[in-house]
Amino acid sequence: MRTFDLRTGEDSFVKDLRVVRWEQYGVDGDLPFQAMWYSVPPGSESPLDQHPELELSLVVAGTAHVLTGGVEYEVQQGNAFLLSSTEAHVVQNRSESTELTVFSAYWMPADG
Amino acid sequence: MRTFDLRTGEDSFVKDLRVVRWEQYGVDGDLPFQAMWYSVPPGSESPLDQHPELELSLVVAGTAHVLTGGVEYEVQQGNAFLLSSTEAHVVQNRSESTELTVFSAYWMPADG
Repeated sequence: MRTFDLRTGEDSFVKDLRVVRWEQYGVDGDLPFQAMWYSVPPGSESPLDQHPELELSLVVAGTAHVLTGGVEYEVQQGNAFLLSSTEAHVVQNRSESTELTVFSAYWMPADG
Repeated sequence: MRTFDLRTGEDSFVKDLRVVRWEQYGVDGDLPFQAMWYSVPPGSESPLDQHPELELSLVVAGTAHVLTGGVEYEVQQGNAFLLSSTEAHVVQNRSESTELTVFSAYWMPADG
C-alpha cells in the first residue's frame, strides 16, 4: 500500500492556489487517470480553466462554489463534481476563514 | 457539470458501514473506474476486503487507520492511499466521536 500526503507533497502555485500534482509519485502507470490536489485560500478563486480532459473533483475540505456555463453550484465537503470535456469552469472559495481543498482526477474522453 | 451528494445518495449497509455506490449515477461510461463512498462509524471498522481491482481511496472526513500486510497506516482527512491488486485490507475508525468517510475509485489492473 502507498499513502499520499497533501500537506507534505511537493507543490507549486498558480496565482495563490497551492497545487500538488501526482506526477511526483510515479504511479501514473497504475492509475487510469492523472491527479492533483489544489487548495484555494479563503476569498479566492481558481483561474478560468478549460481542457479536453473530463475532470472528477472531490471536495476534501471546505465548500466549493463552481461556476460553469452561467450556472453556479455549491459543493460541500465530501461531495463531488464531474466536468465534461472542454467545459469552462471557475472554482471559488467564499469562506472568510476556511481553506478549500479539492482532489481532482482527469482523463481524456474515451472517444477523444 | 454534474454534482454528486454523499448525504442524499442511495445507500446500502455492509455491517454498520454506510455505502453509496456510484452505479446509481449512470456515469460509468464516462469514468475509467468505478467508485463509491463509505462511512465508518466511530469505533468501527470495515470487514476484511480483498479484490483484484486496484483501489485509490481519499479520506474526505475523519481519520482512517488502514491495516494491510501486518502494517498499519494512519491517513488523515484529505490524504489518500492506493491498494494494489489483491492486497487485503481493513479500514478502521478509531475516533470516539467523528465519522470516517472515504471516497474510493477502483479499476482492474492494466495487465489483468
